[in-house]
Amino acid sequence: MSDCLFCKIITGAMPAEKVYENDHTFAFLDISPNNFGHTLVLPKKHYENIFDMPTSAVHEVYETAQKIARALQATGVEGINIISNNNATAGQVIFHAHVHVIPREADDGFTYWPQKKYNDYKQMREIGEKIRRALA
Amino acid sequence: MSDCLFCKIITGAMPAEKVYENDHTFAFLDISPNNFGHTLVLPKKHYENIFDMPTSAVHEVYETAQKIARALQATGVEGINIISNNNATAGQVIFHAHVHVIPREADDGFTYWPQKKYNDYKQMREIGEKIRRALA
Repeated sequence: MSDCLFCKIITGAMPAEKVYENDHTFAFLDISPNNFGHTLVLPKKHYENIFDMPTSAVHEVYETAQKIARALQATGVEGINIISNNNATAGQVIFHAHVHVIPREADDGFTYWPQKKYNDYKQMREIGEKIRRALA
Repeated sequence: MSDCLFCKIITGAMPAEKVYENDHTFAFLDISPNNFGHTLVLPKKHYENIFDMPTSAVHEVYETAQKIARALQATGVEGINIISNNNATAGQVIFHAHVHVIPREADDGFTYWPQKKYNDYKQMREIGEKIRRALA
């Protein structure tokens, strides 16, 4: 898409610190990393996010994310988060599908979101049933 | 693995609110969800995390994660985070590979980790070069 920042990075119209590229995916350093080495992996073809990606693109992107994770590990990184934010409500800012591969450091102090509890198994079963029906 | 909680859930030796299962993957509700409907997707075969998973298992797990994301969307969820924590430094607690599919709500107040800045492009290139060498 002509007005998409990530499409411009893929074509080279915008600069980026590319670390990897193959036929279907492109990976470069996030310019505002959570930790240094934080890499974004994208499909070369423009999709918005997980909801409109064909399964083949999901395979390709996560295969590359795994490659990047293993490469980061080879550089001495111990822990890695692989994260995608799908739609604005989930924190997506650039609407070209991308996966964050984030190196973690033992002392980086990042915290996780608070956890809830289901009231009881009935509530849990009802929510499970809604999802099962949507999958059927 | 006989002492693995998630292996026990997969065989049915431990109870769980299963939402989906196919030949290679298993999905059930996280009992301590960030939001209700928070689902875990795992390979049926025991791997620790992204580092030791064969590519085929990565494909299978994320294909199922996409199915769950779309099903959650069909139940009215707008935004979804798909997250994996690989190794203890990254917050992994159960060492059977799994991906979190987390429904987001507009007012859930979850915040993101702080971002850093590279000192300059030289530092960014040096880190990029380390990753490229590890990929070569």
